[in-house]
Amino acid sequence: MKCVRCKAKAEVHLRAHNAGFCRPCYLGYFRRQVERTIAHDHMFRPDERILVAVSGGKDSLALWDVLVGLGYQTTGLYLGLGIGGYSDRSRERAEAFAGARDLPLVVRSLADEGSGLAVPDVAAATRRVPCAACGAMKRHFFDAVAHEGQFDVLATGHNLDDEAARLLGNVLRWQRDHLARQRPVLEPTHPKFVRKVKPLYLLSEYETAVYAFMSGIDYVVEECPNAEGATQLVYKDALNRLETASPGTKHAFVKEFVRTAQTLFADDAARGVPGECQQCGMPAFGAICSFCSLVREVEAKRARRAAAELTAG
Amino acid sequence: MKCVRCKAKAEVHLRAHNAGFCRPCYLGYFRRQVERTIAHDHMFRPDERILVAVSGGKDSLALWDVLVGLGYQTTGLYLGLGIGGYSDRSRERAEAFAGARDLPLVVRSLADEGSGLAVPDVAAATRRVPCAACGAMKRHFFDAVAHEGQFDVLATGHNLDDEAARLLGNVLRWQRDHLARQRPVLEPTHPKFVRKVKPLYLLSEYETAVYAFMSGIDYVVEECPNAEGATQLVYKDALNRLETASPGTKHAFVKEFVRTAQTLFADDAARGVPGECQQCGMPAFGAICSFCSLVREVEAKRARRAAAELTAG
Repeated sequence: MKCVRCKAKAEVHLRAHNAGFCRPCYLGYFRRQVERTIAHDHMFRPDERILVAVSGGKDSLALWDVLVGLGYQTTGLYLGLGIGGYSDRSRERAEAFAGARDLPLVVRSLADEGSGLAVPDVAAATRRVPCAACGAMKRHFFDAVAHEGQFDVLATGHNLDDEAARLLGNVLRWQRDHLARQRPVLEPTHPKFVRKVKPLYLLSEYETAVYAFMSGIDYVVEECPNAEGATQLVYKDALNRLETASPGTKHAFVKEFVRTAQTLFADDAARGVPGECQQCGMPAFGAICSFCSLVREVEAKRARRAAAELTAG
Repeated sequence: MKCVRCKAKAEVHLRAHNAGFCRPCYLGYFRRQVERTIAHDHMFRPDERILVAVSGGKDSLALWDVLVGLGYQTTGLYLGLGIGGYSDRSRERAEAFAGARDLPLVVRSLADEGSGLAVPDVAAATRRVPCAACGAMKRHFFDAVAHEGQFDVLATGHNLDDEAARLLGNVLRWQRDHLARQRPVLEPTHPKFVRKVKPLYLLSEYETAVYAFMSGIDYVVEECPNAEGATQLVYKDALNRLETASPGTKHAFVKEFVRTAQTLFADDAARGVPGECQQCGMPAFGAICSFCSLVREVEAKRARRAAAELTAG
């Protein structure tokens, strides 16, 4: 197979697009796709300051790499989740990437934010699935750091496979309010929120992996240990089978949803304007935000245990 | 496991409902589900005449059996598709079922309707996928027989797996006009059309197979030979995997769509009122209906071939 651009020997074949690329042309293709998505969906302008959430994995580092290459003003944000060796190795990769390129990186760690706030501890104390606890905490710190640092935009590395799996899950139960909020660009609904964007949402996991590999980005290959058996992986597996039977399925599924079907669900997004959390001051729909509510649960649990130990002693 | 109704030994276990049933209680459960669906979705009344499309398979014969048991006025319609031995064996089962119960059965055969109208011949002559040609012809004859016989309703045996697979296919490409028309009850849009209903749309393929087996219905077990490799089977396979990971997925997917999401697509159904086919007089959106258009293609092909043979001779 030959490269569709320069006719050199192809090094990667994209079945969904029925196209082969050599290394230089693939890197160009990938960057162009990101550039087009940013422009088409009006994600951000060159004068805006972008906070890039980086996990140390291929998607977020590929995204940061492309944004830097396109000349955008970026700062990375690494949030330490406290998931054992996985978190340590992820942090190393994020720091090495930023260090080698002399890029600004904000590092925050859940363990430093309060006792018992590492993801496994919160999940255990609140009897939540780790991914649910992790999601709530990530959202809080991403929002808080973007607000504190007066950024204009928060960019995350969600790829096509992530979005297709999320969409399939939302559609299988017709969760209209979730469908209403599944967009590549979320405009802020409160002055303390910033715009949230997903510039890789039309590029597959395979495409970002190839980009990261070909660019020589050193990323964490291992999956988060909590991901095993997660529902998202069941959806990804189902979608991969559909993709094998009919290449391009995932791309059409997500793209057509965003471009033609999403607006049908838009009314369901009307949850009104959030107020502010009495505890932390960040936007919240109730009296306290879901992050502070998690923290309270963790603290209550610790207090009960301490009391029990006192009684037993 | 025990029967949830009478505590006897369960003979069937429905994971989606987390319930076991003995034989008599299962048959009662199945009939009740059909009865409830008919009532909930206002499918038909006891004074209406129902034409039941029967293929000789488990779904349509189970449906006919239940409707007869519930006291409805039914007539079967068997349409011979001309798919070799499969069609012969299907017809035998439909005729044996009707004969043993002394039920009226209309038998029509595509081969008798015109030369070259058997499904494999039409598919070959028009270069269509057999399932596409078959669908267009079935729709035509179901409509035509229902109209000629002055029936009030046409009932088909589509089950939950059929509907879930069709829904998944429509959703994966966000075919809004198809989603607008995917309903368990389709009211007629023309005086020559009758109401079309799917009373089994919330009962799985497994449930109808168990009902048919336990009722002693002799049905064609083999699949249509054209179904192999059909896209519907890829969707069914994906849905079965999702169902295994989370029992009840298919039921929620279809039921929630029909009850809460379907209306969002309703505007897209506004194709207006059809006119009448200049050829056969049945409703059509163009000058001739899709059935007559298929017939013309077949005839044109035959004429070309005859001309070529004359020239060669």
